Amino acid sequence: MSKWFVLWFTWLSWAWKTTIANNLYNLLKNKWYLNIEYLDWDEIRNKINKDLWYTKKDREENLNRLSYIIKLLSRNNIWVIATFISPYIISRDNLRKNSTNFIEIYINTPLEICEQRDVKWLYKKARNNEIKNFTWISEIYEEPINPEIEIKTQDKTIEESTNIIYNYLKNNNYL
Amino acid sequence: MSKWFVLWFTWLSWAWKTTIANNLYNLLKNKWYLNIEYLDWDEIRNKINKDLWYTKKDREENLNRLSYIIKLLSRNNIWVIATFISPYIISRDNLRKNSTNFIEIYINTPLEICEQRDVKWLYKKARNNEIKNFTWISEIYEEPINPEIEIKTQDKTIEESTNIIYNYLKNNNYL
Repeated sequence: MSKWFVLWFTWLSWAWKTTIANNLYNLLKNKWYLNIEYLDWDEIRNKINKDLWYTKKDREENLNRLSYIIKLLSRNNIWVIATFISPYIISRDNLRKNSTNFIEIYINTPLEICEQRDVKWLYKKARNNEIKNFTWISEIYEEPINPEIEIKTQDKTIEESTNIIYNYLKNNNYL
Repeated sequence: MSKWFVLWFTWLSWAWKTTIANNLYNLLKNKWYLNIEYLDWDEIRNKINKDLWYTKKDREENLNRLSYIIKLLSRNNIWVIATFISPYIISRDNLRKNSTNFIEIYINTPLEICEQRDVKWLYKKARNNEIKNFTWISEIYEEPINPEIEIKTQDKTIEESTNIIYNYLKNNNYL
């Protein structure tokens, strides 16, 4: 039996958190047959967080609720992959405290690359003040101090980035 | 493999929803080894619904969020027992629509018995208007029209009540 874990992807929009997470999810689900759930901001926002916005208080409440859902899944032996900007160190540390084997994955892609990938023009809208509370443009992001994994995606393929995490899991006896 | 289901307990406070549900949960968990989760109002309220009150709108939003959590559990093959007053037919029907094998259990205990059991004096406080939006005293409850199971607890023990549900599950090939 593999050790239970939560893989937490953090950093900006368009860093490729979701892309890499999806790729890894398929690998763990189809090759390793893990009972694994993928929690993504869009779905969570639509289903349980419709009342929350992007203020600091609401972002924290978002992660509090997430923390409960992760606990619910973990006590039923469901592994978790989650992709959330999660800009505050304290929130990520709280999640870590409330989870077993919390693996923080810092998808450290430079801002200009994130902006180039942004086909929805969210950064542009944020710079024009059409979107408020946008992380890094109008809100802070506190970088991970000691993440288990850091990936600089600008010089890597999705496949290579996925493999970094996969190898970490293998080498640390999670798989 | 047993068929997946959600067991939904409805009706007033102190009807014994939680008591019977807990008893059944232990049976299904320890005798049948089902991967089963018990969702109770207190925990859900504390963890993901701190912003919600007892108005109609908030009660509906409560069940919308629940519906997502149930879906999350069901797609990971976790059976569900849930105990919520859930006073509106439309909300319960929405839950039914969004779940596979939704089994509605109407714990139909007369109001006066519920009041007698109420060691926290909630009904009294509601009658004195110290608690607002209290179901049946200051809010409506729409009775289930065609529940899968109805249990009148006033002339039954916890054990007998639990067995009614257990037998239903056996007879309908859920176990």
